[in-house]
Amino acid sequence: LRQRQGPLIAIGGAEDKFRDRAILSRFVEMAGGASARIAIIPTASSLPDAGQLYVSIFKELGAATAEIVAIDTRHDAADQRLVEIIEDSTGIFMTGGNQIRISAMLGGTRIAEAMAARSREGVPVAGTSAGASVMSSVMIAGGRSGGTPKRQLARMSPGLGLIDSVIIDQHFRERNRVGRLVTMVSYNPGLIGLGIDEDTAAIIGADGMIEVIGRGSVLIVDGASMASDVHSGLDRQPVTISDVKIHFVAEGSCFDLEQRTVTTWRKESRARRAAQ
Amino acid sequence: LRQRQGPLIAIGGAEDKFRDRAILSRFVEMAGGASARIAIIPTASSLPDAGQLYVSIFKELGAATAEIVAIDTRHDAADQRLVEIIEDSTGIFMTGGNQIRISAMLGGTRIAEAMAARSREGVPVAGTSAGASVMSSVMIAGGRSGGTPKRQLARMSPGLGLIDSVIIDQHFRERNRVGRLVTMVSYNPGLIGLGIDEDTAAIIGADGMIEVIGRGSVLIVDGASMASDVHSGLDRQPVTISDVKIHFVAEGSCFDLEQRTVTTWRKESRARRAAQ
Repeated sequence: LRQRQGPLIAIGGAEDKFRDRAILSRFVEMAGGASARIAIIPTASSLPDAGQLYVSIFKELGAATAEIVAIDTRHDAADQRLVEIIEDSTGIFMTGGNQIRISAMLGGTRIAEAMAARSREGVPVAGTSAGASVMSSVMIAGGRSGGTPKRQLARMSPGLGLIDSVIIDQHFRERNRVGRLVTMVSYNPGLIGLGIDEDTAAIIGADGMIEVIGRGSVLIVDGASMASDVHSGLDRQPVTISDVKIHFVAEGSCFDLEQRTVTTWRKESRARRAAQ
Repeated sequence: LRQRQGPLIAIGGAEDKFRDRAILSRFVEMAGGASARIAIIPTASSLPDAGQLYVSIFKELGAATAEIVAIDTRHDAADQRLVEIIEDSTGIFMTGGNQIRISAMLGGTRIAEAMAARSREGVPVAGTSAGASVMSSVMIAGGRSGGTPKRQLARMSPGLGLIDSVIIDQHFRERNRVGRLVTMVSYNPGLIGLGIDEDTAAIIGADGMIEVIGRGSVLIVDGASMASDVHSGLDRQPVTISDVKIHFVAEGSCFDLEQRTVTTWRKESRARRAAQ
């Protein structure tokens, strides 16, 4: 694990925006609460107003400012005014959409450099759906859902590189993506796979501890002992993959990426909810 | 593993019935080919003619006889003529439908005893979908699909007991059942979970070797090192489950239930198909 200094909040998409907003308010709190200055990057989305809903939410949740960094061309991504929004931010949020739009539009630009620099300086970076996948050095670029590992399920491409050694998939149980995540890890079992359910977040600390919050769980794929025949045969045939270790981590439990093990088991969060 | 003497052919449902019929013809061959006498148990289905299609197929595939053992009440299950069809069979086939219908109708009857006896004597027993799930001592009784382990996903009940120590789920990737299989295993990690895709079969030998044939793969859940909090909390909350070992086994590969490891990796089947 070589993660930069700041925490990453990888959200599995479809996070609650209208009720208790547990994940988004946790992000605002991590970004400084009443003094938070949040930069919103809606580039993954092709919808012109994708960022506007988040501006409203982050302000309602008490952030001091929430500004959209509107980048629709690679030229925009060198705009000094936009770069300064990032440099001045205490929290960065990437919306959902298509992660290739983010990497194709931002990769190698001053905006991407400024984001990585802020992350190194300790600023929390959050992303939902595509915005979560694009955080890692190698990301899922696309591919089909469905549970049986096949090569055609997984296409990978370079992400923003805010964290090495993980690969992040989202809408995980909702879109039945176990097979494609395990297939991606089988290409290089040095990677740890994180499959994040909707309305669920993996908060990845600089120390490699993952805290899970939200309604679903995070499936973690550890391929350290894995063997497979992914290197032979045809794209549409199922592959055999043995000795994959998986962990399902729910709210209140933590996972240590270095030790590759669950270190904390939920206690209070359960008791608290049961009492409600 | 305490399996009876004969092989079990657990099919994940929706096996090919009209083209190469690879799985069904393998079963006929194991039952004796041209001298096969096949007993068809359509009890899982509430459709009156569920067995008739299989009669035609098994005859087309060269079986000497294929007879329906029509049981619609527990009284039928003591019918001497029907018991004799089982006792005289060289292969037994259970259709899909609802596995509770099979266990509720046959459990503790002379038909169930005759089936277990034939299996002990070496006769292959095949089942598709519900007919596969009902083979084990403890079976999946129902529950919701979806990838995140939650207690409400899994309900279990007693099966026919042709094999101990496994629990069989079917239509596996098609219905996104990883979460419920892992949850079932977490209740008692002494069980090994088998999740079988459609048009795919796990052929379980008396020696505990599983051979996989068909279009998809078999997901095997080994909970020996598992830890979970399934024993605490609420039914609808996700559970945390760590250190689950899984294996995806595709056609041409074999898995050893005793050693809990893939022992054979596909070679010829791949090369043969690639050449087609």
